[in-house]
Amino acid sequence: MMRDKENIFPDYENILSRKEKENLLKQHGKVIWVMGLSGSGKSTIAAMIEKELHERGYLTQVLDGDNIRSGLNNNLGFSQEDREENIRRIAEVAKLFLNCGLIIIGCFISPTLKAREKARKIIGKDDFLEIYVNTPFLVCESRDVKGLYKMAREGKINNFTGIDSPFEPPVEPFMELDTSQCSIEDGVKQILEKILPLIEYKSEK
Amino acid sequence: MMRDKENIFPDYENILSRKEKENLLKQHGKVIWVMGLSGSGKSTIAAMIEKELHERGYLTQVLDGDNIRSGLNNNLGFSQEDREENIRRIAEVAKLFLNCGLIIIGCFISPTLKAREKARKIIGKDDFLEIYVNTPFLVCESRDVKGLYKMAREGKINNFTGIDSPFEPPVEPFMELDTSQCSIEDGVKQILEKILPLIEYKSEK
Repeated sequence: MMRDKENIFPDYENILSRKEKENLLKQHGKVIWVMGLSGSGKSTIAAMIEKELHERGYLTQVLDGDNIRSGLNNNLGFSQEDREENIRRIAEVAKLFLNCGLIIIGCFISPTLKAREKARKIIGKDDFLEIYVNTPFLVCESRDVKGLYKMAREGKINNFTGIDSPFEPPVEPFMELDTSQCSIEDGVKQILEKILPLIEYKSEK
Repeated sequence: MMRDKENIFPDYENILSRKEKENLLKQHGKVIWVMGLSGSGKSTIAAMIEKELHERGYLTQVLDGDNIRSGLNNNLGFSQEDREENIRRIAEVAKLFLNCGLIIIGCFISPTLKAREKARKIIGKDDFLEIYVNTPFLVCESRDVKGLYKMAREGKINNFTGIDSPFEPPVEPFMELDTSQCSIEDGVKQILEKILPLIEYKSEK
């Protein structure tokens, strides 16, 4: 018989709780999940949220699709199965940071409802705040910062979200932004107005 | 052609640096890697290090074999390949926390030199501090807190470290402790004396 899961004893009672970490940091953890097409502006938004929160003394961690894929998920490709495992691992890592009291800013295309549902389930619905950067497809394609849309149009990339792979919009996002209608700065300001009351430290909580 | 790694653009320049996080936290990040046999006392030591550091205002994160295996690594077993992937993922997660300025306390049997070498390479040698809890095998077996040695002796668990799977001691650990020769409290005190100077905030660094 192989050693199996029945022999794993999670030992949470000995390590410090999320509440103790939040008391130390004087903040409340949340996962801000910024999603949208390539070129929608989500990476810039995530970086600006982090910068603004940092300047206010909040400890944050950006988890970014590209950065995660160069480390933890460097053994995953872009098949459906690997994309699901990609999001699962990211959600588990986000949860570790959340349990440590941090504000996590996830920044992922995360095109499917199913994958985001999985992330929400792992992280917990009260801590999972979806921000949908709903910039029109044609605007994203015309920006084409990384030249990926061109490559996808030329057939050099398959399964590219928005071209030959669907983006399923969230049903009830925490917030929705269109960066062709408002500046990134205004978008970030709107996000902060909704986020700050949730992360501000309340000692009696 | 599938989308491949050449299309991944790590975007570290926009997100905050480790130094900025360390300045916020007023501490320097390190990975304290506590290793040893099942029953050696490493989990208790890890939990006590965290508690002591927390009381001094340091932000820490315990990464524990069992806890990680119930989340991020819940799709891994105990084959050689899965054990290596287990340590690789843990090291990548530790690195994410390290880049956020935290003090990570890893607590893993991590029996092979090869796996620990991989972890050191991912984390970076200057930040990877091995603490070898070198409690004699017979003491660990006699404690048998989880009843695992008994099951291994009865052949109900295979590849159990110390019985039918080797433990390869570290060549030059940062520290070595034998919990049959000193109390856990004294061991933790010795560890703190060596760790504190490394994590104390030096603003000019």
